[in-house]
Amino acid sequence: MNILKVELGSRSYPILIGAGLLRQPDFFREHVPARDVLVVSNTTVAPLYLDALSEGLRPRRIVEAILPDGESHKTFTSVGRILDVLVANRFSRDCTVVALGGGVVGDMAGFAAACYQRGVDFVQVPTTLLAQVDSSVGGKTGVNHPGGKNLIGAFHQPIAVIADTTTLATLPPRELRAGLAEVIKYGLICDPGFFDWLETHLDELLAGDPRALAHVIYRSCEIKAEIVGRDERERGDRALLNLGHTFGHAAEAATGYMKWLHGEAIGAGLLMAAAMSSESGFMTSAEVDRVRRLIERADLPTRIDGVSPEVALDHMRIDKKVRGGRIRLVLMGKIGDAFVTADYPEAALTRTLEAYFGL
Amino acid sequence: MNILKVELGSRSYPILIGAGLLRQPDFFREHVPARDVLVVSNTTVAPLYLDALSEGLRPRRIVEAILPDGESHKTFTSVGRILDVLVANRFSRDCTVVALGGGVVGDMAGFAAACYQRGVDFVQVPTTLLAQVDSSVGGKTGVNHPGGKNLIGAFHQPIAVIADTTTLATLPPRELRAGLAEVIKYGLICDPGFFDWLETHLDELLAGDPRALAHVIYRSCEIKAEIVGRDERERGDRALLNLGHTFGHAAEAATGYMKWLHGEAIGAGLLMAAAMSSESGFMTSAEVDRVRRLIERADLPTRIDGVSPEVALDHMRIDKKVRGGRIRLVLMGKIGDAFVTADYPEAALTRTLEAYFGL
Repeated sequence: MNILKVELGSRSYPILIGAGLLRQPDFFREHVPARDVLVVSNTTVAPLYLDALSEGLRPRRIVEAILPDGESHKTFTSVGRILDVLVANRFSRDCTVVALGGGVVGDMAGFAAACYQRGVDFVQVPTTLLAQVDSSVGGKTGVNHPGGKNLIGAFHQPIAVIADTTTLATLPPRELRAGLAEVIKYGLICDPGFFDWLETHLDELLAGDPRALAHVIYRSCEIKAEIVGRDERERGDRALLNLGHTFGHAAEAATGYMKWLHGEAIGAGLLMAAAMSSESGFMTSAEVDRVRRLIERADLPTRIDGVSPEVALDHMRIDKKVRGGRIRLVLMGKIGDAFVTADYPEAALTRTLEAYFGL
Repeated sequence: MNILKVELGSRSYPILIGAGLLRQPDFFREHVPARDVLVVSNTTVAPLYLDALSEGLRPRRIVEAILPDGESHKTFTSVGRILDVLVANRFSRDCTVVALGGGVVGDMAGFAAACYQRGVDFVQVPTTLLAQVDSSVGGKTGVNHPGGKNLIGAFHQPIAVIADTTTLATLPPRELRAGLAEVIKYGLICDPGFFDWLETHLDELLAGDPRALAHVIYRSCEIKAEIVGRDERERGDRALLNLGHTFGHAAEAATGYMKWLHGEAIGAGLLMAAAMSSESGFMTSAEVDRVRRLIERADLPTRIDGVSPEVALDHMRIDKKVRGGRIRLVLMGKIGDAFVTADYPEAALTRTLEAYFGL
C-alpha cells in the first residue's frame, strides 16, 4: 500500500492506495472511527462492493443510500434525498458519510456531508479510475445545475481517501478511458516526463495492467495533493486543475449530462485547450498533434458534435473562473506548462470553438 | 454609527449599526463592491425597503429573489430557487448576495451564497431585532428539515453586516418581543449586569425606544462577535450561544415551524434551560424566578402546549450538540454563567419536559 498526504493543516488527510483494501476488514475499522455510518453508493457499484465494505465496518450502525447511476442524477434534489436519510436515521454530528463509487457518488456524498448539521466527516472510497486519480481528492463537492456543471457545492475535505485499485478490474472499458483523460491532464499541466511515460505505456493502461494503473494513480494523486495543499480554495494555482474543463463542462451541460461521461468530455476539452493555446500563439502545432494522438489512442472524443459553437460559448460564460464578465482559460505554453489567463485573442476562441463544436 | 468587528483572520468583517443607513446610498456602494448583486428578501420586507436598498446599490446590476415570509418556508427547496435565479442570470463567482430581512431570509440567502459556485460573497442587511442581535452575525446559515431545525446548512461568514436600526420602527410588536428573547439570552450566558439592565429597561425596549434598542443591539453583537471570534466552528464555547435552543428547536420542529416565531420558542426555551439548571442542582430557584419574570414581562411564552414531553424529547435527540447518542445541554450555574454539559440527571430532564411541554 502507498500513502500520500494532502497537507492542509488541521484538515490534512491521507490518500491510501493499494490492491485489495476493501477485503481487509481491520483496515476500514481503523479509518472510519464513527459509531454511525451512512454509505452512499449507486445501483451499479453497490452490488459489487457494498457487502465487503459493510463487513469491514461492522459492528458500526450502517445505513445505506443507494442512488441511480450517472451524471444526470448529480442534482440538488438527489442530495436532498441523502439528507433525508441522515435525518430519518437521527444521525448526529459525530457520524461519518462514506462515498463508495465514482465521481458522481463522491461529489454528492461529500456535498451532503458538508451540509448535514453544517458539516460531518466523510471518507472517499473511489471505485473508478477517474475518482481515484482526481475527483476523490481535494474536497471539491457538489452537484450540477441544468444551467451549468458543478455550479452548486462546497469545499469539504474528506478525512481519508481509500483507493482499492482492485476495483478497476470490474470497471467498464469506457469508464477506464474516461479516467485516463484526467491522468493525461496532469502530464499536460506540469509534468512533461509523465506525459512521455503515458505515450509509451498507454496500451498497458488500456489493457488494465495493474502495475501501470497503480503508477498513474499514485503520480496523479501526488500532483493533485501538492496543488491542493498550496491552494485549497482555488484562489490561484488550483485553477490549473481545470485544464480542459471549461470546454468539457460546456460539452456536458449542452448535452444535458446524458451523452458524455465527464472524462470523455474532458478528453475533448484537453485537445481544445491545446488547440486554443496554439491559436493564441502559446503552443506549437506539433505539440497539439502530440496531444491529439494520445487522446485518439485512448479512444476519447476529439470533437463534440450536436452542439453549436454559439451554444458552447454561452455555457462557457457561466464557468466558475469567469471574473468581471471575462472567461478565464487554462492554456499551455507547452506540454507540462499550463497557466491561467484572460489574455487571449477573442478570435482564437471563436476559431477553436468552430473547429471542435458543430451541429 | 457604531462599528464592531468579528475577528476571524482573513474572514473578519464589520458589523455596522446605526439609524437610517438604508437611506444613505453612498454607504451601500462602499460595502457591496460587486458588479452583480442578488438581493434576497421576502414579501413583507421587500415593499418596505427594497427600493431604498436598490437606490443605494445603483448602478450595479440588481436581481431580486423575493420569497414568501415565515419560518415554514426556510427549506432546502427554497434555497434551490435562489440558486436557480443566480444561474438563470449567469452570475459569476465575483457576485454578491445581499440578504434584506429577518433571520429566515438571512439564513437562506447565506446558505445559497455558501453553495453557489462553492461560495460567493454575501452581505447581511437585517431588518428585525432578532436578526440584528443574533442571526445575521457569525456565519451560521442553513435551512430547516421537517425532522429538525437548522439541520442542513453551512458556516459561511458575511463580508459585512449592516444593521439599520430605523427598520425596527416598522417591526410588528410580536417580532420585537421575539427578538428580545435572544437579547435576554446574552445576559444569561455571560453578562449578569446586562441582565440587570434588561430588568430595569424592558418597558422602554417594548415601547420601541430607539436609544434602548441601539444599546441592546450593540451589546448583543459585541458578545456574539467575541464568542464567534474565539470559536467560529462551534468546537467549544460557541455552543453557549445555543442556550435555550435545544428546547426551543424541539418546540419549533414539533409544531411544523408554523405556530411559534423562532424567538418565541427561544423565550420558552430559556426558561426551560433555567428550570433544568435548577432541577440539576446548578441554579437556585430564586434565579429561575427572575428569568421567568423577565420572559413573562416580555410577553413571551413560558410553556409549550400541544406538544407532549415524549415528542419534545424525540426532537431533542437530533440536536446538533448530540454526541455518542447523549444530548448535551447548555445550562447555567447562575444568571450570566452558562456552560455546556452532558452530565445531568436524566430524571431532571424528564421533570423539566413534563413541566413545560404538554398536550
